[in-house]
Order: sequence, then structure tokens, then C-alpha cells
Amino acid sequence: MAYKALIEYDGTGYHGFQRQRADLTIQGQLESAIKSVAGQQATVVGAGRTDSGVHATGQVIAFEVSWRHGCQALERALNATLPKDIAVRELQEAPEGFHPRFSARRRVYEYRIYTGPIRSPLRRFRAWHVPRHLDASLMNQAAETIIGRHDFATFGRPPQGDNTEREVFVARWRWTDELLIFEIEANAFLYRMVRSLVGSMKAVGEGQWKVSDFAAALAKKDRSQAGQTAPPHGLCLTAVYY
Amino acid sequence: MAYKALIEYDGTGYHGFQRQRADLTIQGQLESAIKSVAGQQATVVGAGRTDSGVHATGQVIAFEVSWRHGCQALERALNATLPKDIAVRELQEAPEGFHPRFSARRRVYEYRIYTGPIRSPLRRFRAWHVPRHLDASLMNQAAETIIGRHDFATFGRPPQGDNTEREVFVARWRWTDELLIFEIEANAFLYRMVRSLVGSMKAVGEGQWKVSDFAAALAKKDRSQAGQTAPPHGLCLTAVYY
Repeated sequence: MAYKALIEYDGTGYHGFQRQRADLTIQGQLESAIKSVAGQQATVVGAGRTDSGVHATGQVIAFEVSWRHGCQALERALNATLPKDIAVRELQEAPEGFHPRFSARRRVYEYRIYTGPIRSPLRRFRAWHVPRHLDASLMNQAAETIIGRHDFATFGRPPQGDNTEREVFVARWRWTDELLIFEIEANAFLYRMVRSLVGSMKAVGEGQWKVSDFAAALAKKDRSQAGQTAPPHGLCLTAVYY
Repeated sequence: MAYKALIEYDGTGYHGFQRQRADLTIQGQLESAIKSVAGQQATVVGAGRTDSGVHATGQVIAFEVSWRHGCQALERALNATLPKDIAVRELQEAPEGFHPRFSARRRVYEYRIYTGPIRSPLRRFRAWHVPRHLDASLMNQAAETIIGRHDFATFGRPPQGDNTEREVFVARWRWTDELLIFEIEANAFLYRMVRSLVGSMKAVGEGQWKVSDFAAALAKKDRSQAGQTAPPHGLCLTAVYY
């Protein structure tokens, strides 16, 4: 039987989502848990291959396994087996032909910047510390230039053989307490695209780049034109829509 | 020279604030950092002796040390020396006779409960997971009964030789996304008082206790009448007023 589920994880202790030979990964932990619960070697497919240190509240996975005791029992058994930094929610039978990555129509990521003058211990794994004034209204002007269908070659590399065009539906910055939060929703993302966009928009926010510099970098379709790549720990995959 | 400062910390890795012989504590880390920066053995006094696993965004400390390079330089040196889960903010010269604990007029704590059905990896060190519906309006009725001057013997033990009367100025529950957050401000607190109040109010929220049971427990002034003590990791000392 094929199953799908929502996954939340704290990516701090992992070398990203995708299984690797020696390092701890989210996929590896999920596959170990399935093996230990169902006694079978399953392959877990995820909607997004998040990098080392990146978090998720809305990652979607699928896998096939023989199991007779119902979805709730499988979900409970997996949560009892998984380490505390990974949890499974809303486990259910997957529709015929469902593939977490290929079937996905939209993905949503959130990126957090903390702008207080001193590093924040309680946010150290969840937000990029930029101890400077950032002008969110300028950053939102930059964000508006990426809405729609664009070639994002400046801001990331495609998976093998794919093109670099993507469609962005939502891109906006908002303040929540002392956090500056970027929400971006697109049909799909290039490798490192959100972090690369965030690093360049942060240059806009601190006045190092003008909004027009950002727009010009996008138009050049050249990876070397991007600014800094923001660190992974501020990033979280929050939703995938089918 | 006497200094005061605001301290933020993630209490997850520590055996509470107060120095202990063998275990890692916040006080111990601060004193080590001062020693390494200023070459002197100083005693750090804190406003609140938070328990193992309890966090702070607004702990206040004071200490005496000889230092010639100004407050900003001392703050910067301490933050460069301290581990990433402790940070010093707003370091300044302490007023004559200032004592973080004895001079404090009010303290504010926040307690977080996460009520989602499945444990949340990203909140696992910051919120108590209670996977049930909690009625915040009943919990607020219970909270109202503790506002004012009361004998809180039911909900905590006093420091040696002290009485059990405390004055509560603010006590209320609010929803923020999926978190139920309790804010309490009082002149001072008994040992474990916030966690004991939270555990009993949670019993009200899930319908195990009536609001009148909570009020009756308070009136009995008997430690054995309290409900469960909520776990430490949901608690955070957010402010101290002088």
C-alpha cells in the first residue's frame, strides 16, 4: 500500500533531507523508522530536498509498505519510533499515482531574519541574525519584481536537465515582533533559490543594493550576479500544495 | 565597579541558573566568561533562580569586576566568550545598592502549551505538549482568581524563612497560532509556583477540574492540594521590573 504524510522536523542535527551513506538525514531516519515498525525496507520520497540545517513544518512524503493495522496505528508507531526532532502527521493512503515531488503544484517556504543588536540564544537555530536596520518596504519592492514567471538562473541551479524558469505566486516580507519573515510560494524552486533570493534582498534592505540592482541581477540570468546566500537555519518548508 | 545586564538563554542544556559543583549552569557559564574576559573571579547574582530546562529572555544579573574599557566592550567580550545558548544585552553600570533579586519589584513569566495532536519537533524545547482541547476561557476564569494578594502555599514553597504571600498583577491565557500562552506578572514567586499554577489551570482547561476546584485549592493553602506541576521547558522568565 502507498502512503503519504506530512512531516515536521528540526533540521539542526541533520545533513538535509536526502539519504546519504554516512551522515544522518531525515529520509534515512524515516526509512529506519519504517523498517523498525513494519519490518520492511521502504524508500521514502519527499516533496523537497531540504539542505543541511533547513527545517520543515509542511514537508510531504510518500512510501510503500505492507501494513494491516490502519493509518492511525502506523502514524502512532512511527512517531513512537522516530527521534524527537522528526514527527509524522496526517498519514493517509496516497491517491493512485501520487508522487510528492512530481505531483506538487506549489511549494511554500518561510525565511526568518532576526535583526536585534545581540545574537538571540532562543532563536539561534531558527533565524539568521542580521544585527542591522533592514528596510522591509524596500525589500518588498524587490520581492515584487520576482512575482510571476521568470528565469531565475541568477538565484539557483536547476536539478539535472531542468530549465531555470519558475513561477512565483507570493513573495513578501513582514515583521513579527523582532523577526523579519519572508514568505515565498512558487510552482517549484531551483537549488538554493530561496536562500539566494533572501541574501540579495537583505542587501537591498541594508542599502547595499538598490531595488533596481536586484531587478538587474534577476534580468542577467547569471548565477555570479547573485548576492550572498543566506544561511540554511533561517529557512523552513511550510507547505506543499497538490 | 558594579554592573547589571539583561540575559537571554536557552535553558535546555543547563541545570538551571544557580551555580552547582559539577553541573553546567547559567551562573557558572557567566562567571567563567567574566573570569576569562576580565581575569577575575566574580560572583554573578540573578533576579530569578530558574530551574533546569527553564528559559529566559529577560533575566537580570549583577556582578562586580574591575574593567577599564567601557560597558560596550565588556558586553562584546562576554558575548564573544559565552556559548551560543547564552547572551548578554544592555550591560551597564549598576545603580548604587542595586541587587537583582532584592531590588526587583515585579517579575514576568510566560508559559507555553502546544495543543496540536502530534508532538511538534520545532517546539519540543519551548512548549509543553498537551494534545487535547483546552478551554482557554475557563482557564482565564481560574487565572482571574489569583489576581491580587493571596497566600500561594498550595502552589509552591517559599525561599527559606519567607512567607507564602505574593501579589499577582497580571494572569491571563491567550492563543497565538497553535500555542496557548500564559502570562503572569507578580511581585515575586514561590519555588515552582508558575509551573504548579499552570498544571492546575490545565486541569481546568481539559475539564478535569472546575474553576471552583481551582479556587478551593488556592484557599486551602496546602501544597498537597495542587494539581500536576507543568514541565520546565514551557517556562520563560521574560522581564524583571525595578
